[in-house]
Amino acid sequence: MDPLNLPVFEDVVAASARLAGHVRRTLVLRHDAIDEMAGGQVFVKPECLQETGSFKIRGATNRLLQIPEDQRQAGVVAFSSGNHAQGVARAARLLGMPALIVMPANAPAVKVDGVRADGAEIRLYDPVSESREEIARAINAERGSVLVPSYDDFDIIAGQGTVGLEFAAQMQELGAPLDYLICGAGGGGLITGIALALEGMSPQTRIWTAEPEGHDDWARSLAAGEILANAPGTRSFCDAILTPKPGNLTFAIGKRLLSGGLVVSDHEVAVAMRAAFRYLKVVAEPGGSVSLAAALGGLPDEMRGKRVGVLVTGGNVDALLYAEILSAA
Amino acid sequence: MDPLNLPVFEDVVAASARLAGHVRRTLVLRHDAIDEMAGGQVFVKPECLQETGSFKIRGATNRLLQIPEDQRQAGVVAFSSGNHAQGVARAARLLGMPALIVMPANAPAVKVDGVRADGAEIRLYDPVSESREEIARAINAERGSVLVPSYDDFDIIAGQGTVGLEFAAQMQELGAPLDYLICGAGGGGLITGIALALEGMSPQTRIWTAEPEGHDDWARSLAAGEILANAPGTRSFCDAILTPKPGNLTFAIGKRLLSGGLVVSDHEVAVAMRAAFRYLKVVAEPGGSVSLAAALGGLPDEMRGKRVGVLVTGGNVDALLYAEILSAA
Repeated sequence: MDPLNLPVFEDVVAASARLAGHVRRTLVLRHDAIDEMAGGQVFVKPECLQETGSFKIRGATNRLLQIPEDQRQAGVVAFSSGNHAQGVARAARLLGMPALIVMPANAPAVKVDGVRADGAEIRLYDPVSESREEIARAINAERGSVLVPSYDDFDIIAGQGTVGLEFAAQMQELGAPLDYLICGAGGGGLITGIALALEGMSPQTRIWTAEPEGHDDWARSLAAGEILANAPGTRSFCDAILTPKPGNLTFAIGKRLLSGGLVVSDHEVAVAMRAAFRYLKVVAEPGGSVSLAAALGGLPDEMRGKRVGVLVTGGNVDALLYAEILSAA
Repeated sequence: MDPLNLPVFEDVVAASARLAGHVRRTLVLRHDAIDEMAGGQVFVKPECLQETGSFKIRGATNRLLQIPEDQRQAGVVAFSSGNHAQGVARAARLLGMPALIVMPANAPAVKVDGVRADGAEIRLYDPVSESREEIARAINAERGSVLVPSYDDFDIIAGQGTVGLEFAAQMQELGAPLDYLICGAGGGGLITGIALALEGMSPQTRIWTAEPEGHDDWARSLAAGEILANAPGTRSFCDAILTPKPGNLTFAIGKRLLSGGLVVSDHEVAVAMRAAFRYLKVVAEPGGSVSLAAALGGLPDEMRGKRVGVLVTGGNVDALLYAEILSAA
């Protein structure tokens, strides 16, 4: 087997230069009540405030900016439950490229509307009876367009990693480097990009995944030292991070740089969403709240009293579901 | 009559130096959908992300930092419907001073809890039958503590004005100085502080107040050139900005630097709160949303197509009210 071509710290730095002017530098938030619930000092980077309401614009823009001019007219294709879709649609619009997004028919309306508002073509599919990979590949073959993967891609990983460069720099400015960082993991593009960034900027920070119950493929894969998949058919309302198993590139990085995995219940996710509302004043979507949920559920012993970074990775949640979660307290 | 002692641009700059390390530099947000609803380019500064969930911490901290060491043990007293209360309580805690806050018995629970969490003593009063000014003055006389006014005060105005310094600097970084700024006005401490900041940093920016219907004391006072009060007993759910009339200091500044006043309905405020949720992913409270509401209701002709700054001044809203507003769309 050929060795994998994996990004390293310098690729994240290069992505950061490429993204200047295209993405927001989100701030870092904290609150005493959150520290008390967690049992440590918790620093929250709200990427829900990013363009398109999630960090996904970072990787998508980094990828699309590297498509040669003469290939741009054929456009891009992506499949995604919503946040990557919006990132690709926005990046394509800003670069004047056509985009087609393959989305599950049950994706949140706010995400479908976000993609549509950026002018992308949408192909809805039935996640039970159809394969999004096959649909996307067929369209790609026909159009000669570029497939933009949602996580298992050199440039996507490097682009998402720019969150980590910002976070580490901001904690340095506060004079408070992170002891730990917890980050939600679906395919793992974000957490492994961040791990590369911290390897260069904050090597003492230990990094853990957070996942919904029943989707703990990263936790089990890291423990086993090999890629393990989730049982098919498991459900969670954390739509953004329900990938079947770690990617090949992301796991190769994760195996080297991640310490282990935490698991949260849907109830703990709802508690985290309410805490983000009440104490931080940011809108957190279910799948974007798993690392905050892992902290608020009570930090593991080794993290107690330490400085722990978490991320709210997205805020694209339908109003009625959000209202229901707020009212259920 | 003695001439009023009014702060100027340099006092806002001095406040900014004093506040370094005490407050957050909130970012600037925007969204195409908001621009389209407004009919112009709208830039939103979300001070709901500030410590204590509103800009009020800025003025309170600027004021308390200037109380001499030997007077700090007697503590501070403030009266407020909630956001100023939380700002004073937090600033007092950080400086190790006792604080007593006089709050209306119908203040939102999230605000009362916020004050309590910072260890301040709370005296609830009945806004129909009792005078908060008299209660606060009696307590003050007894304790020898310092009354911290919520808006009509040299240092409070200068402290709130630091929002304007940040906003102007951020727009300069974007290469897009503001043509207009709209800001909610209760007592007017924030908008007049911002007006002083912009006088020094962005003198071409024209500044307008925004107020809820029936509480348009600023709009009418600016038009008349003299302080006019609201009719007593008018109601709105914008609890944060229901002051009876402009302050003496704030109106003296406002008369010179403000262009006029806009008025919004409670319905328009709810639309703005939902837009902040959906497009910006920040939690906006009713009284904190009036300037965004004024923009989204459709900008006045002279502002159409221009660069217009607005502020979400606070995010301290009870979960059930927020859920109700989201569900009412």
